[in-house]
Amino acid sequence: MAVMLSRSSRQLCNVSLCTFALHKWRCYSAQGQIPSQVLDSFRAVVGNDNVSTGTSVRAQHGRDESVHSCRPPDAVLWPKCVEEVSELTRICHRHNIPIIPFGTGTGLEGGVVAMNGGVCFDLLKMDKILNLHEEDFDVTVEPGVTRTALNRYLRDSGLWFPVDPGADASLCGMAATSASGTNAVRYGTMRENVLNLEVVLSDGSVIHTAGKGRRARKTSAGYNLTNLFVGSEGTLGIITKTTLRLYGIPETIVSAVCSFPSVQAAVDSTVQILQCGIPIARIEFLDDVMIDACNRYSKLTYPVTPTLFLEFHGSECSLEEQVTATEEITKSNGGSEFSWARDQEMRNQLWKARHNAWYAALALRPGCQGYATDVCVPISKLPQIVMETKKDLEKHTLTGPIAGHVGDGNFHCLMVFNSADLEEVQRVHEFTKRLARRALALDGTCTGEHGVGLGKKQLLQEEVGHTGLKVMEKIKTVLDPQNLMNPGKIV
Amino acid sequence: MAVMLSRSSRQLCNVSLCTFALHKWRCYSAQGQIPSQVLDSFRAVVGNDNVSTGTSVRAQHGRDESVHSCRPPDAVLWPKCVEEVSELTRICHRHNIPIIPFGTGTGLEGGVVAMNGGVCFDLLKMDKILNLHEEDFDVTVEPGVTRTALNRYLRDSGLWFPVDPGADASLCGMAATSASGTNAVRYGTMRENVLNLEVVLSDGSVIHTAGKGRRARKTSAGYNLTNLFVGSEGTLGIITKTTLRLYGIPETIVSAVCSFPSVQAAVDSTVQILQCGIPIARIEFLDDVMIDACNRYSKLTYPVTPTLFLEFHGSECSLEEQVTATEEITKSNGGSEFSWARDQEMRNQLWKARHNAWYAALALRPGCQGYATDVCVPISKLPQIVMETKKDLEKHTLTGPIAGHVGDGNFHCLMVFNSADLEEVQRVHEFTKRLARRALALDGTCTGEHGVGLGKKQLLQEEVGHTGLKVMEKIKTVLDPQNLMNPGKIV
Repeated sequence: MAVMLSRSSRQLCNVSLCTFALHKWRCYSAQGQIPSQVLDSFRAVVGNDNVSTGTSVRAQHGRDESVHSCRPPDAVLWPKCVEEVSELTRICHRHNIPIIPFGTGTGLEGGVVAMNGGVCFDLLKMDKILNLHEEDFDVTVEPGVTRTALNRYLRDSGLWFPVDPGADASLCGMAATSASGTNAVRYGTMRENVLNLEVVLSDGSVIHTAGKGRRARKTSAGYNLTNLFVGSEGTLGIITKTTLRLYGIPETIVSAVCSFPSVQAAVDSTVQILQCGIPIARIEFLDDVMIDACNRYSKLTYPVTPTLFLEFHGSECSLEEQVTATEEITKSNGGSEFSWARDQEMRNQLWKARHNAWYAALALRPGCQGYATDVCVPISKLPQIVMETKKDLEKHTLTGPIAGHVGDGNFHCLMVFNSADLEEVQRVHEFTKRLARRALALDGTCTGEHGVGLGKKQLLQEEVGHTGLKVMEKIKTVLDPQNLMNPGKIV
Repeated sequence: MAVMLSRSSRQLCNVSLCTFALHKWRCYSAQGQIPSQVLDSFRAVVGNDNVSTGTSVRAQHGRDESVHSCRPPDAVLWPKCVEEVSELTRICHRHNIPIIPFGTGTGLEGGVVAMNGGVCFDLLKMDKILNLHEEDFDVTVEPGVTRTALNRYLRDSGLWFPVDPGADASLCGMAATSASGTNAVRYGTMRENVLNLEVVLSDGSVIHTAGKGRRARKTSAGYNLTNLFVGSEGTLGIITKTTLRLYGIPETIVSAVCSFPSVQAAVDSTVQILQCGIPIARIEFLDDVMIDACNRYSKLTYPVTPTLFLEFHGSECSLEEQVTATEEITKSNGGSEFSWARDQEMRNQLWKARHNAWYAALALRPGCQGYATDVCVPISKLPQIVMETKKDLEKHTLTGPIAGHVGDGNFHCLMVFNSADLEEVQRVHEFTKRLARRALALDGTCTGEHGVGLGKKQLLQEEVGHTGLKVMEKIKTVLDPQNLMNPGKIV
């Protein structure tokens, strides 16, 4: 697991450089210093104020919200437009310097850790919202625009962008990591909601994956480059614009909480709700440990039993239908009466509590570290995998409250452990591997939404097989022959 | 346009071979003969009965339903399982022989035309429906399974597969060409509905794009190979299995026909219906020429004015809501009362008429040839492009009834012309280019669903630009360095 890898010394990094050399990828000088004339070239492009080699700035950019230890880049640059990104990339290309794109740093698999040193492109100064087409339900944004900033901007238009991974991530970062989250069961993930990307390739050239300015709802014009770059975690290029599908804000929204006598009852209800074709907007599972943690952290009073947080979107009439059908199912599985959150304030409170599950879990053991696992299985396998995982946690005396987007078959164990206790770290490490392999054995994936990053490279190989991984490596090699784009991630 | 290209002589083919050589792709011998010992190797794999070099069999496999002239392969092979496909591919790889995968031959851009000779793999004998998971709404099918065969098989399960391009195409062929059609506005295209693919690569190796047997609803495990192969038109590999999302058959379905005083009124209604977020299942536009042709061909009596064919899916209650809201919109645009098709037989009759639009158009000028154009634009651009296109057809005295999946911004002119009249052929050629460029100028695509094939390679370059095309070429080169997989298509 990550936590082990991240403790590797500079020496280990050199070993990894060696491996890349075997792949015929030339690598950045191991000394980790950017020559001063190169720094001058960067300054000539973005100005003095937008180049930093300061220790604390570099440290801020060398890690995300995961357990992967900080590996700072050698410099941080703040380009302000695509032309600057392109020019900086050309300089890096000439001098063989790795590039790590950086948005809000809210990733969970170490995607921004500077494994081979190099420069970090902090893209938050590129924060324009461009070309809102209300009548076509699409908008184009630069990498500095976050999910909530876009939705604030859209508020008066009656439109919104529903993909919601919890964190207030940059939308281009969400495209790069194929983010999803609580609304994906109804509105899809970034894969279904990105219409076009502007990407700077490793040689500084700029492409538009669907052609410049294009925003047709569907196309069959050549290879689907858009979805090749969505989820490529910065390893194929730097996303500098994304064109997104938007949706009308639903006429009516209601949220509800339902408690269950057992995990099986909650998960069975989820499966049945989906099988009945109820177009539920969110269906989030929290196990007893998780709801207890949320109660304490967010000052709530829900019963400490397996729980579903639900949300329904639609017209008054269709909502009534959805709710009635859902209640029938939950009751038949022994679920409680619904506890309602009808107005915006109540709903916000509910979903804030859900999104704060991570911090609530951490608060269970103050001073400890957290690691959010992430697996996804076909929905019919959910009861089995959740039950087995609960037993596994218990058997190995680990703290890992379970929360998840069960409507997609996706869930997380929010592992909380004492990183100074190497024996416990080892137990967490083995548990997360077992969990991922349990998902693989049930036709699932080792990551539904957090990505591969640093932590899941071995599991990726197990998931897609040797020939599948070989194809990914070939694509990486042909688009980034010098292995400059976020090296050491995915492949 | 296709019709011109397709008349090119063997000499032109050699020119094209030459071009490929410049791209460092080795090519099949220009003499177009497969050595007898190679044919013997094929026979050793699939048996004598599954290898044919007969003229008529080859001719049947050298064209699709488009205007592209037949270019027969040098042999046709019928593998019966993925192992045979792999073994045959290895033989072709050793002997540098192009491979063209063939499903039902219902493509519309010349995707199966054997530009460089080679062998056709007719995949229809691989016709097993595998691993139906009713509880997870997914199924895996071999390439010989067509859309209607799958839906017949599913009938008693209460499930269906909605993507419906009209033709009874092979589902793996639909994946290869990124097909969509009438239901895409609600259920998405093949891109959104393929969960996994088994693909034989040019060296005979077999990959599963999402890992063998995997069928999680979402994944962020590495590059999205599934959507790289969806729409790759056989140029990156041979799809030998596809795992598809299924849907519950809607509780209630009703179809309706609505006539409008003008194109603008019909298209404005479409745009407003979508903008109101009505989850309409089908919304098909037919212009006056098209509805007249359909009336004649399918013995119907609809008013000869611009028309929408609509379909609503849902519960009784939600249907009523959808219909009421839609009627309000159509009436405010001067639309007629709805003419209803409520029972299955009536609905079948209606949609059969829509799907027979192609034959209805051809029947307008018996003995003439047809070419279905295909463009897609953001929905707000629809009124403008349809109006301009109608004027263009009129100005150049061309027969081109318009029909389209306007809910996606996608429509076709079904061009009917005398292929012996070279001046008319030229006018059609110029018109279709103008139409595609009109779509490009309005932020759209030169092909919403028919693909690039042979006919739109130049337009693809205009659409995605030089750097975009270069990326596609690189991917092609690295996955198929000998240019054996359906050469001459897309890139």
